[in-house]
Amino acid sequence: MLATIITIGDEILIGQIVDTNSAWMANKLNEIGIKIHEIISVSDNESHILEAVDKSMKQSDIVFITGGLGPTKDDITKATLCKYFNAELILNEALLTQLTAYFKQRGRVMNESNKMQAYVPDNCEVIPNERGTAKGMWFEKDNRILLSMPGVPHEMKHIMEDHILQRLQRDYALPYIHHKNIMTAGLGESYIAEKISDIEDGLPAHIKLAYLPHLGAVRLRLTGRGKVGTDLIEEINRISASITDRIAFYVYGFDELKLEEALGNLLKKHQKTISTAESCTGGSVAAAITSVPGSSAYYEGSLITYSYEVKQRELGVKAETLTKYGAVSTETVEEMLVGILGKMNTDYGIAISGVAGPGGGTPEKPVGTVYVCVGNKTKMQTKRYQLTQNRADNIALTTTYALFQMKSFMDEVEGLLS
Amino acid sequence: MLATIITIGDEILIGQIVDTNSAWMANKLNEIGIKIHEIISVSDNESHILEAVDKSMKQSDIVFITGGLGPTKDDITKATLCKYFNAELILNEALLTQLTAYFKQRGRVMNESNKMQAYVPDNCEVIPNERGTAKGMWFEKDNRILLSMPGVPHEMKHIMEDHILQRLQRDYALPYIHHKNIMTAGLGESYIAEKISDIEDGLPAHIKLAYLPHLGAVRLRLTGRGKVGTDLIEEINRISASITDRIAFYVYGFDELKLEEALGNLLKKHQKTISTAESCTGGSVAAAITSVPGSSAYYEGSLITYSYEVKQRELGVKAETLTKYGAVSTETVEEMLVGILGKMNTDYGIAISGVAGPGGGTPEKPVGTVYVCVGNKTKMQTKRYQLTQNRADNIALTTTYALFQMKSFMDEVEGLLS
Repeated sequence: MLATIITIGDEILIGQIVDTNSAWMANKLNEIGIKIHEIISVSDNESHILEAVDKSMKQSDIVFITGGLGPTKDDITKATLCKYFNAELILNEALLTQLTAYFKQRGRVMNESNKMQAYVPDNCEVIPNERGTAKGMWFEKDNRILLSMPGVPHEMKHIMEDHILQRLQRDYALPYIHHKNIMTAGLGESYIAEKISDIEDGLPAHIKLAYLPHLGAVRLRLTGRGKVGTDLIEEINRISASITDRIAFYVYGFDELKLEEALGNLLKKHQKTISTAESCTGGSVAAAITSVPGSSAYYEGSLITYSYEVKQRELGVKAETLTKYGAVSTETVEEMLVGILGKMNTDYGIAISGVAGPGGGTPEKPVGTVYVCVGNKTKMQTKRYQLTQNRADNIALTTTYALFQMKSFMDEVEGLLS
Repeated sequence: MLATIITIGDEILIGQIVDTNSAWMANKLNEIGIKIHEIISVSDNESHILEAVDKSMKQSDIVFITGGLGPTKDDITKATLCKYFNAELILNEALLTQLTAYFKQRGRVMNESNKMQAYVPDNCEVIPNERGTAKGMWFEKDNRILLSMPGVPHEMKHIMEDHILQRLQRDYALPYIHHKNIMTAGLGESYIAEKISDIEDGLPAHIKLAYLPHLGAVRLRLTGRGKVGTDLIEEINRISASITDRIAFYVYGFDELKLEEALGNLLKKHQKTISTAESCTGGSVAAAITSVPGSSAYYEGSLITYSYEVKQRELGVKAETLTKYGAVSTETVEEMLVGILGKMNTDYGIAISGVAGPGGGTPEKPVGTVYVCVGNKTKMQTKRYQLTQNRADNIALTTTYALFQMKSFMDEVEGLLS
């Protein structure tokens, strides 16, 4: 099955936003065996959209469109699709009822442009969108499919994941593809490649390995194509096991598992609790931990201590430690850890202090210097990291490294105890 | 002058990388008055590239191509362009000398595929690339221009900035374009559209308005095209002023300003400090505030209090308040605010408690119910928000709304005082 992706929006063509939707869709579609022929971005202009749709419907079996479905005047996808399909916009009563309920539930008034969203082309099937007022539309013509979705990324992803991908897999004979992701942190792409180069060289032609690095973590994706599902799965599992064996310390899980989920699972398993004391990360580690549903079972709370004063008063960091070693030092993060473990009364804790930048660097501790201390009431481990010149990257990298350091520490301690 | 951008590479069509090149180019080209008709991404496949080039040369005055120029076998752009232009690859002696010097300087051995980079189509002008071995190529045919550049972002940007953009501005009569962004928060796209519909309807043909919503915030972008720069700027400023006047409460700034920066600027201006007490947002508001460089000038610290115990012990929330009204209530967030202002000794504070989901909802307080209290030592303001079913969205939306509520509150208080 061959696909074309069309993203619609002036904001893409004037370079105000980067089109991340098409990469996300291309990735998901490839995973279920749908190949992308072309990605086209056009402006909110009827004739351009018509031309792109016409070309796409001729060259592919399925066309995915995002964008141009909002309630405002500059969104013209719906009218344009009516024109292409010779369809009429008609009021969908069920949709109007849903939209009315949606606005009522939020205590918001429904205006005329919101009501217009209940009008849909008479030849399409409405695809639910529980995240917003612009619904998806499923058209079929001459055995080809056209799917139109809103351009808001989280709404589009929701519609694709909950209402489109499985249906395509169920109803169409797609080639059998199996993926397995090995999730790693703490080791760079090229180091991993070096450690597993013989495994990679020995891969059979129908199995491919891709390295997908992202801010301190690397996902290794094995993709196999074949006809017999179980054999392929077993074959990929064997290769995955030999890779995992080689870099065991850095593998924190498989498939879509996030590092904060892996840490959360470990805390739940051992019925332990955690807290954080953060300076340069400004709450990002706590935000990652609490992004996991159910994290209240093991997370108690955090202190974010930006100033010297707050570090002293709230975490009991000694004035002389700050004077002698500085706020960015092994000594300070270790006192921060003791402070937060006492204050939140948790089994484990993470303490962080660093120079996120752009200001605050010194020759000994330039921008990108970060100390992370993890530990419990009897043992702690501090590491110094030398990161980048970029504030946002430093915060994101520190968050990944701190979660990974905490998980590795827990693995060791809980392993010894059990 | 109308342009098409073509990005070439299998990695884009399988979703392994996001195409950021075309957004960067589109932005730069718009700034000098070149309008993008379409962005096309195709794989490293001769017939797909030929088709895209042919279409682009027919529909636009200038075509920008990135990608497919590296030394490896799968990079086929150069051969494909020879075919399109009926040209021959010939050895460019000057280029070979340059490449030889480039490799010598880096102490690297030049192999056969590197040498191939000195061969260029006989009908093009070579555009220098001081950052890498793949040069740019400038073709002209029937008064249309085709520019081919490598896909490595920093190399492409360097070629565009140092060798292409100025030349286009110098040699071609390009229209004048001016953008202005009005940054708003706290009011949905459709409500804004309703409030300013007469202004929008009255816009002259050469000025366009676009709504760019993102998790609780909406950017309004005015784009004007004209010949006399200063008149156009004044005209756009007048329209911007009348829109801003109409929705003044929701406008927090202009152009690329972020909400956390607007709040930070306000705190700096009035030399005030801030702290946060967060429950369901888990540190996301603190992380947003501290994402701004220099935020240590006004941000002291935060307490993230997930459990009842920590709320009581660290913030002084009364046990009876929690029992009688619950952790998600006006009473609790108001006590949290008093607690954090005292604890961190700041002028302003934000306190948040809510049901992020997916668990924890009740009929009275379903998932998505959030209370945000902002205030100082003499006055506070609490709002209840009814958000979505999605945990990540609820956290992100609450962060935007809390920052906006704090900024609006400060505007009022500091306005009254000044």
